[in-house]
Amino acid sequence: MTTSQRPGVGTTVGADLLITGCTVLVHDDAGQIGFREDAAVVVRDGTIDAVVAASEAERVAAAERIDGRGLVALPGLVNCHTHVPMVALRGLAEDLPTEEWFDDVVWPVESNLTPRDVELGARLACAEMIRGGVTCFADHYFAMDTVAGVVAETGLRAHLGQAWFSSQGARGREESLAFALRHRGGAEGRITTALAPHAPYTVTDADLAATAELAHEHHLPVHVHAAENRAQTEASLRRHGRTPVEVLHRAGLLDTDLLIAHGTGILDSDLPLLEHASGRIAVATSPRGYLKFAWPTTTPVRALTAIGVPVGLATDGAASNNSLDVWESMTLTALVQKADQGDPRWLTSRQALHHATVQSARAVGLGDRVGRIAPGLRADIVLVDLTGPHTQPVHDLAATLVHSARASDVRTTIVDGRVLMRDRELLTVDVPAVVRELGERLPALVDRGHGRRVQRYGT
Amino acid sequence: MTTSQRPGVGTTVGADLLITGCTVLVHDDAGQIGFREDAAVVVRDGTIDAVVAASEAERVAAAERIDGRGLVALPGLVNCHTHVPMVALRGLAEDLPTEEWFDDVVWPVESNLTPRDVELGARLACAEMIRGGVTCFADHYFAMDTVAGVVAETGLRAHLGQAWFSSQGARGREESLAFALRHRGGAEGRITTALAPHAPYTVTDADLAATAELAHEHHLPVHVHAAENRAQTEASLRRHGRTPVEVLHRAGLLDTDLLIAHGTGILDSDLPLLEHASGRIAVATSPRGYLKFAWPTTTPVRALTAIGVPVGLATDGAASNNSLDVWESMTLTALVQKADQGDPRWLTSRQALHHATVQSARAVGLGDRVGRIAPGLRADIVLVDLTGPHTQPVHDLAATLVHSARASDVRTTIVDGRVLMRDRELLTVDVPAVVRELGERLPALVDRGHGRRVQRYGT
Repeated sequence: MTTSQRPGVGTTVGADLLITGCTVLVHDDAGQIGFREDAAVVVRDGTIDAVVAASEAERVAAAERIDGRGLVALPGLVNCHTHVPMVALRGLAEDLPTEEWFDDVVWPVESNLTPRDVELGARLACAEMIRGGVTCFADHYFAMDTVAGVVAETGLRAHLGQAWFSSQGARGREESLAFALRHRGGAEGRITTALAPHAPYTVTDADLAATAELAHEHHLPVHVHAAENRAQTEASLRRHGRTPVEVLHRAGLLDTDLLIAHGTGILDSDLPLLEHASGRIAVATSPRGYLKFAWPTTTPVRALTAIGVPVGLATDGAASNNSLDVWESMTLTALVQKADQGDPRWLTSRQALHHATVQSARAVGLGDRVGRIAPGLRADIVLVDLTGPHTQPVHDLAATLVHSARASDVRTTIVDGRVLMRDRELLTVDVPAVVRELGERLPALVDRGHGRRVQRYGT
Repeated sequence: MTTSQRPGVGTTVGADLLITGCTVLVHDDAGQIGFREDAAVVVRDGTIDAVVAASEAERVAAAERIDGRGLVALPGLVNCHTHVPMVALRGLAEDLPTEEWFDDVVWPVESNLTPRDVELGARLACAEMIRGGVTCFADHYFAMDTVAGVVAETGLRAHLGQAWFSSQGARGREESLAFALRHRGGAEGRITTALAPHAPYTVTDADLAATAELAHEHHLPVHVHAAENRAQTEASLRRHGRTPVEVLHRAGLLDTDLLIAHGTGILDSDLPLLEHASGRIAVATSPRGYLKFAWPTTTPVRALTAIGVPVGLATDGAASNNSLDVWESMTLTALVQKADQGDPRWLTSRQALHHATVQSARAVGLGDRVGRIAPGLRADIVLVDLTGPHTQPVHDLAATLVHSARASDVRTTIVDGRVLMRDRELLTVDVPAVVRELGERLPALVDRGHGRRVQRYGT
């Protein structure tokens, strides 16, 4: 166990925050999920100082105490791939195939986006994620300076990248790099950054290779959409004779710290390349959108697990996923992977919680900072209430969390030791004010009469 | 529209309940979903008296008023197939194939069930369903006198059948009939009943035929598990040379008012028989369990829709589904059907809401009483709060309801004009008391040391 008491905990120096009497999700040295009952979490300087027996915590002096009786403390969820400002488009492009979704609605509307729209969307998205127990998100979008500002203001942790297409010329790549360098370590260290080329179907091989070089030169990770669906893989093979993963490999991107979004089009033949790169790469899965777009395959989680590639949980943007509910992504990953493999024993609740915690943290390059409730890690913690009738009785706590609990059961969300939601009350976002102003701006935002679009989909 | 104002509404006679200022989900004469904004619902004697403009409602005198501003009024959800006492087993039999789930856990544990366990489980289940916006459920289980008592006490509507196996001899069938006759019209008319043979794989052809005769003689509907999965259909073909649907047909059950649970093993070749019977039969789908058991197919909703067979939404029991969350069943039905058909345009949000309302009401034989908010129907209504950050902005209300809202967004649940939950507060169930006593009884309930089971699974 990495969560044992440290000598002299809390007896001489007061804690900043003390959560008492809760059950704590812990990981053993092999990363396996366990639960420690009747425990207390001691937080100091935004860091988890110790996990101790509740009885020991009585002696600890603390500036702030939370009574955790009846609650389960989990590492905060990580949304490993999203586009937060797209909550403004939630429900705007329904029941459409991928190409029409992009070309007829999303990309025309995105040509109207202003920094103020991005700011309001990001703020609303942060409110939604804090309410749903998400403490960190990986974002890949436009006007990311604005998103970084909202991260600073709302208190979340984020891994941010400014998206770009080759159609923007050299400017897109340069701005993505400048953003990554400007904001790295921002928001008191809560912001990490990545280079963010959009995808192999919108960024040329030369630009992908240049990205790999910049990643090495500046010690930056890369976040990219790739092999999103099987049709993209087939189109890539048709046009270039290579799968998207092979394109990434040829560009040198498999030698960088790479986060691949979706990967439902990864083929068995891609696995040796990915295995060779494992330790550096990860995949983010957002299964709701794959069902909704009726894609024929889902992320090959079992195959990726077998070769040591972490698979983090994600929601994608709300324009396709309709929510930023990572808890639902956890549940759906368990259900869809069982169905996909035809094996009810695969992807147990404990495996799902492993994806939701350490694997998601690793996917966004934060495996040494978050994803576990253990001494020395940042205090990104959510408290979940399992007293509702839908979560009783509890025969198997992991199953209760994955298959019965919902995002709405999260009562308290803490990032870096700071409480962002207490007993369902949001402390850093004024939702009615955001909704009111965003509502006024929607007619201009959704206007498609001009015929412009930011890009054209070509799988 | 069936929801227009009736002459002189509320101007002379006071209403019992008035819900003002809400948006109301309505159905037009063709059954299509629409929304009426800034409306009021007038309830008198447990019946919907009128749906009027909010401005008109100002003149209506009412014993009880609910301010519905910012809320959407929906017909209460119907759980078309469940086993409510099984909430006591929630999370007990995880990650198992169907046969082991039945033979190694569920059927041994069910041999321990006492009426008190059933009562506590049913009460907890009713609390969960009221909190999730469910106003009616179709139950198929043991000790159903006890369940009927809980229905009377908690205020829900229910369609109840006492389950039986041929292994019980004649007693099972006789008791199922006696139950149906004894409780028909109970709980002030909120209880309807059905004959409830377990399934073609546990009830003989002769007993199924006898059930059909009893159904005709006593004007009772029948609720049965059939063609639950593809393996059952294949086993039936192997053993009897007939699919489960053909077995039901031969027994005369397709000539009764028949509710078939699951039907993921229905073959294309079964469709003509079902089409011939349509108008009398319906299918209940609970897609979460099919994914969790890794069944290779799901309920063929598109094919059933094409031949006019209503498909209602269900959760099955919490021992397989882990919740009685019909809202999730609605969402998953939309997602899984799109994926199953490879067609993102199929099963739109409005179609999902049609399954959740009129089709579910028809499936449990209550199409003339519930499932729509329209004059003359019983006042089974839920009020949903869409002001949360996860449901804003609203570009398409149907999409917001199906893909962004959650069961936890239901604020108020009304059955027969009686408020069972107001602003998330349950008014007819004491959950902590139920959880406490159930917890004390669990060790005896889950003991499997005796080696008994109520039945053996043989697909």
